[in-house]
Amino acid sequence: MAVNLPPPDPASLHAVRGLELGFAMAGIRKPGRKDLLVMRLAPGAKAAGVFTRNRFCAAPVILAKKHLKNPVLALVVNTGNANAGTGKDGLRRALIVCDAVAKQIQAKANQVLPFSTGVIMEPLPADRIAAALPGLKDGSWLDAAEAIMTTDTVPKAASRKVQLSGGEATVTGIAKGAGMIRPDMATLLGFVATDAKLPQAALNRIVKRVADRSFNCVTVDGDTSTNDSFVLLSSGVGVEARKERDLELLEAAILQVAQQLAQAIIRDGEGATKFVTVTVERGRSEAECRKIAYAIAHSPLVKTAFFASDPNLGRILAAIGYAGVRDLDTGKVDLFIDEVQVARSGGRNPAYREADALAAMRKPEFSVRAVLKRGKSAATVWTCDLSYDYVKINAEYRT
Amino acid sequence: MAVNLPPPDPASLHAVRGLELGFAMAGIRKPGRKDLLVMRLAPGAKAAGVFTRNRFCAAPVILAKKHLKNPVLALVVNTGNANAGTGKDGLRRALIVCDAVAKQIQAKANQVLPFSTGVIMEPLPADRIAAALPGLKDGSWLDAAEAIMTTDTVPKAASRKVQLSGGEATVTGIAKGAGMIRPDMATLLGFVATDAKLPQAALNRIVKRVADRSFNCVTVDGDTSTNDSFVLLSSGVGVEARKERDLELLEAAILQVAQQLAQAIIRDGEGATKFVTVTVERGRSEAECRKIAYAIAHSPLVKTAFFASDPNLGRILAAIGYAGVRDLDTGKVDLFIDEVQVARSGGRNPAYREADALAAMRKPEFSVRAVLKRGKSAATVWTCDLSYDYVKINAEYRT
Repeated sequence: MAVNLPPPDPASLHAVRGLELGFAMAGIRKPGRKDLLVMRLAPGAKAAGVFTRNRFCAAPVILAKKHLKNPVLALVVNTGNANAGTGKDGLRRALIVCDAVAKQIQAKANQVLPFSTGVIMEPLPADRIAAALPGLKDGSWLDAAEAIMTTDTVPKAASRKVQLSGGEATVTGIAKGAGMIRPDMATLLGFVATDAKLPQAALNRIVKRVADRSFNCVTVDGDTSTNDSFVLLSSGVGVEARKERDLELLEAAILQVAQQLAQAIIRDGEGATKFVTVTVERGRSEAECRKIAYAIAHSPLVKTAFFASDPNLGRILAAIGYAGVRDLDTGKVDLFIDEVQVARSGGRNPAYREADALAAMRKPEFSVRAVLKRGKSAATVWTCDLSYDYVKINAEYRT
Repeated sequence: MAVNLPPPDPASLHAVRGLELGFAMAGIRKPGRKDLLVMRLAPGAKAAGVFTRNRFCAAPVILAKKHLKNPVLALVVNTGNANAGTGKDGLRRALIVCDAVAKQIQAKANQVLPFSTGVIMEPLPADRIAAALPGLKDGSWLDAAEAIMTTDTVPKAASRKVQLSGGEATVTGIAKGAGMIRPDMATLLGFVATDAKLPQAALNRIVKRVADRSFNCVTVDGDTSTNDSFVLLSSGVGVEARKERDLELLEAAILQVAQQLAQAIIRDGEGATKFVTVTVERGRSEAECRKIAYAIAHSPLVKTAFFASDPNLGRILAAIGYAGVRDLDTGKVDLFIDEVQVARSGGRNPAYREADALAAMRKPEFSVRAVLKRGKSAATVWTCDLSYDYVKINAEYRT
């Protein structure tokens, strides 16, 4: 039951010239479902990525980082198996997959980026993946979004057109995930592609900045996956974006697509019934604002209060207090639910009426805003509530 | 449904000479329940404490820290209201309570330590507490344990006798809490008292060391309360502990009592059905071992797997990986559930059979042991699972 997340309209998802999509049912974990995606890039395309900082980084992530140094010609994504916690054998199996894709497109294995998502600590059935490659079907972006779903209830895709000085450019992306880690299906994956041609340095810069303002601003349960990857692709067959202004416009379009995908992951968060925007304002640094926003967004007590629409908001003050900002003057903190001022100067706002906060929290979407009054920085994090279904999904998924 | 936690046998709880206990039903939040405790100390008694590091530290905690500098003659504890997130008015109300207790025992207000636990951001009914003081009844340690309960399902008390060179000493303590923070009832409180006489410097040292190895080793949900306090009392009317050996014996007895109380809090954790001991061994420092142990113990995915008795143990590897030990070589990590070796050198142990881990995890108590093979340090944390009832208790408690 995703929160305000209708399936994407196929007509709204613009094709990206210079990028071909192929999918298959390889039977990796279960038969009869799309579980394999290959994205094939035009020669001269560029790619940049950001990857999980989990030390138990999955085998495909290790290889993808390495292969990014070469001219990339294809990406291969499987669901049903994360190929994480699999040691050296996992690397060998991931390489078998790259090799099989490379053979099919007359490339080298190190020009293929592999991605996996699914159960951790199980051997990847690389043979089954290789066997499915000859039967790949041409697909749309919606097919691609479906092919990387695991327990997502809604496929996640977004698209924009943007007018640059030399003409129109397209930005389209897909993502999967219903938590920073899945119910025994590790992970968040995001891929955004444009036909615009832009310098590698710009691509590298944009992928980091966009990730920090989209995928790095969401949390379902605080569990960082072993497989998280966000890759930005430029096929380069379209209009050129070299001028500062064009790069800004393109980055804005990429950010919109990435934010829409990141928010879709929260709307489809495991057991989610609420979509909550947590903003911390007037802090000394963005880092301390993020620390506090994440403390609120991760607190199981705050999240169960969201679920119950219970304005039990002392829990939010407690989370602000333990977030680790050591010299925070709590006597200055204000707290709002939407426009309702709950706390003023670190205590209950005398004018606060619980019925007002209750009305706001009963909506499927609302905001939490903490104002620290000690600086000019701010940060925003998107999160969902903690419901019975979160426990159910995670306790019962595998067994 | 606490895990292996029978109510304490009243006969096992030894009185501590030089400390009198009085309780009342003050009707602070609900009528007809013990909600007020006064501990009165003999003149010359000593006290030492450790307190929450939450920046939204409650008013009573601020006063208790301050009053600890004086010769302490009484402690007053109320449930039903945490007096946290209450600003200056909260301090004023806490002081009214100290003053009322002080008048009754011919002391000064700054010789009384106040403690509160309950809902955050509501004004403390100090008048009702003051009104109940003349009607205090003499109580046992079991009465005292009951008087500080909020949603605890079992009163928590423990007691030991220890033979020192000059004679026998008694150590008895009580605690409350079913999480680091309660379902809108903030908090963990712990009080341990001995009749032994020992130097203030030794008391200060012991309270910190014991807290680090008992109350600071437990987690239900990772939410650090605004009111957490652990106080060690020495009435000083009993045998003297001055020699190094006596102090060691006394500290060991205090640690046993404190660990039993801290573990009781986990056994009675909100919705707990499992009691899990998480140990991380052969790390480079105790700090990094604690970091990893807490990452495992806080992960909602690991905790729901505990609840389901589901050996979905890649989740534990993922938690080890994101714990923040940046140079961890995951290729060396071993993982055990009780004696079952699940992972070896960072991957699945070839000899591992899931049925063995399942059998261990079905028990109400088991251990998780990660071996890092990079040093000689270790750390242990006690935790519980994340069940439907955790969500139920926290979503439905207040509303």
